[in-house]
Amino acid sequence: MEVYNGGVTSPQGFLAAGICAGIKKNRKDMAMLKSTVPCTLAGTFTSNLVKASPVVWDQEIVRQYGSAQACVMNSGVANACTGQQGDAYCLETAKAAADALGLQPEQVLLASTGVIGRQLPIETICNGARTLSGMLSDTREAASDAAEAIMTTDTKKKEVAVAFELSGKKVTIGGMTKGAGMIHPNMGTMLCFLTTDAAISAKMAQKALLSCVKDSFNMISVDGDESTNDTCVLLANGLAANEEITQEGADYEVFYAALELVTKNLARRMAADGEGAHALFEVKVTGASTKEQAITLAKSVIESNLVKTAIAGHDANWGRIIGAMGYSGAKFDPQKVDLAFESKAGFVQIARNSVSTGYSEEEATKILSENEITAIIDIHEGDQEATAWGCDLTYEYISINADYRS
Amino acid sequence: MEVYNGGVTSPQGFLAAGICAGIKKNRKDMAMLKSTVPCTLAGTFTSNLVKASPVVWDQEIVRQYGSAQACVMNSGVANACTGQQGDAYCLETAKAAADALGLQPEQVLLASTGVIGRQLPIETICNGARTLSGMLSDTREAASDAAEAIMTTDTKKKEVAVAFELSGKKVTIGGMTKGAGMIHPNMGTMLCFLTTDAAISAKMAQKALLSCVKDSFNMISVDGDESTNDTCVLLANGLAANEEITQEGADYEVFYAALELVTKNLARRMAADGEGAHALFEVKVTGASTKEQAITLAKSVIESNLVKTAIAGHDANWGRIIGAMGYSGAKFDPQKVDLAFESKAGFVQIARNSVSTGYSEEEATKILSENEITAIIDIHEGDQEATAWGCDLTYEYISINADYRS
Repeated sequence: MEVYNGGVTSPQGFLAAGICAGIKKNRKDMAMLKSTVPCTLAGTFTSNLVKASPVVWDQEIVRQYGSAQACVMNSGVANACTGQQGDAYCLETAKAAADALGLQPEQVLLASTGVIGRQLPIETICNGARTLSGMLSDTREAASDAAEAIMTTDTKKKEVAVAFELSGKKVTIGGMTKGAGMIHPNMGTMLCFLTTDAAISAKMAQKALLSCVKDSFNMISVDGDESTNDTCVLLANGLAANEEITQEGADYEVFYAALELVTKNLARRMAADGEGAHALFEVKVTGASTKEQAITLAKSVIESNLVKTAIAGHDANWGRIIGAMGYSGAKFDPQKVDLAFESKAGFVQIARNSVSTGYSEEEATKILSENEITAIIDIHEGDQEATAWGCDLTYEYISINADYRS
Repeated sequence: MEVYNGGVTSPQGFLAAGICAGIKKNRKDMAMLKSTVPCTLAGTFTSNLVKASPVVWDQEIVRQYGSAQACVMNSGVANACTGQQGDAYCLETAKAAADALGLQPEQVLLASTGVIGRQLPIETICNGARTLSGMLSDTREAASDAAEAIMTTDTKKKEVAVAFELSGKKVTIGGMTKGAGMIHPNMGTMLCFLTTDAAISAKMAQKALLSCVKDSFNMISVDGDESTNDTCVLLANGLAANEEITQEGADYEVFYAALELVTKNLARRMAADGEGAHALFEVKVTGASTKEQAITLAKSVIESNLVKTAIAGHDANWGRIIGAMGYSGAKFDPQKVDLAFESKAGFVQIARNSVSTGYSEEEATKILSENEITAIIDIHEGDQEATAWGCDLTYEYISINADYRS
């Protein structure tokens, strides 16, 4: 089972399209995703108290129906902090798409990303939805157009697929995601769309999604700012004709492993493409007594501005890492931390028992100059571990965000 | 009662000195503070699990004795993550200073700030302590030398004093602080030394200090990174000869108000002089139902990288403020937030009931281009409020921290 260069149209029966609808200047800004048959739906969303209107719309569909067949996405405007007008525009968009697709509005999911506090240009959005409905295709290119249309400050499209077998049938999971800033997901993620032709019950799909998100999207941070729009949905249309997964067991385990590959692959790439990022910074905490302790410590390190700027400067300023662990809220013995850095350029043990090993700064700088760096932390308490992904904090993050709206 | 341009030598009986001891190149890096008579001592320190050796040393003195007479400070090296050697160097430093001053080691407080993970250059430090002990003076200049010697990436010395009357006697409180990065105090602050000639019991001094710190240093953040070295001590030598404050009452209230003026003044200036900061960003949350709710919301806004970069860009990207409130963990009605910006250039109401007022972007940008900006947030629930102080996030923050050690 391996991830390959596919996308949301890789599973059977999924169509997509992405266009320049006119929300942004000369850039793709609207996408549509549709299954030829109704899908089982799982979804997880931002835990931010301030939720964008499309998040509220989607949550209601997940809660009431557990099923959907299409999704309309736009970038440029987040439709968050837009009051009742924002909710009304959601209904209007879903109606326009549903009419064009021959569906009911409650079968259409919505997702928006972009500036908070501005109203959607509703006419542009509805026209866009109609145009998209006439362009849907199951090609690789169509999936890529959709992945491009949901990008904001992302510099790279993020798509992936994985194929595997369930009860003798070939099953595929495809996915696309966006997210370069305001990335600090908590029980959800920026925008992520996962498709599969697996037959799986809504309950088991939701279970698999929540668990995978916990170990992937919830373990990344670009800037510590949790979005108002985090949305992660999984659409399963059953066209692979495997025996439907309705409980835990061998088939569920295989499906779960595949979904985990897809979500971790996309999450890593979101961190690597963090706003202004030059390097992916992976932090692996081992030797923890509980999983939660390992998660808390790993996330505290990737979220530290001081650690992130040190990585930007290829500077093995390791005290900042121990410092960030210390204020994380997790208990551990501050005298018993081992720390090492690893990258393509090599491996260096930096500290043992929280004291410098007398490592070579030159060697450490060489290792930290790569664009994928791992910090390996052992707290010598038990056998639990967790990995979190972040990125360095650079000038470009500032310039991207100091004038994001202009 | 007003703050004035004074420092730690403003109260009677306090001597100070600051020198270039040779830890840093051509910059003052060691300071000493001494009272002519033993002092009542109050102190509060970092809650980071990883505590620097001098923090552990001072905590023990506060706990065991509640009294001290001198303090030796150095910048350049933090003496954190230095193991047993770091503890041994604390004892050695205190002994060298005590011998030179005719005191016992346990009457000497210690404070270090700078790079984590390196050992103190102990010979330089002990020689420095001996030199300082021969240079102590009660002049304004001596206080300023000390304030300069504790600076790291600070661009400005931060000193202040306030004079007032207690039981017919003139009483003075003086203070100095440093802290430009790794500033996110929690029950303590970077390095802050407060002196007073008031007669006050250790218990009441500690009570006043903890309460003032909560509303001042604990309400600022530069980068969200809580230090391993946060230290805030108050030395009271009683030379003003007021009736000793041993319980709550009118005298305690006056003393408290004065201490609050000093700590808030210094805290604001720490935020304004945050690493790379071009602007002080004050966030006032009003209409809260509890003080804790107001504190949580105000701090979440000043800590948001996205809000801080928007301030750097003079961009009224107010959705980021509402977003940061939403993920703060505090409950409030996300539909009922009023937001305004204020500075010397004017006042503009940005949002009412969480929706844009249709304000002028040009006017907002003018207001946000000042170097002291206030965001006023009303959540319409009650009459509690809190103010937090932060700063903008600029290119300079990155350049200061990407190569801090080189």
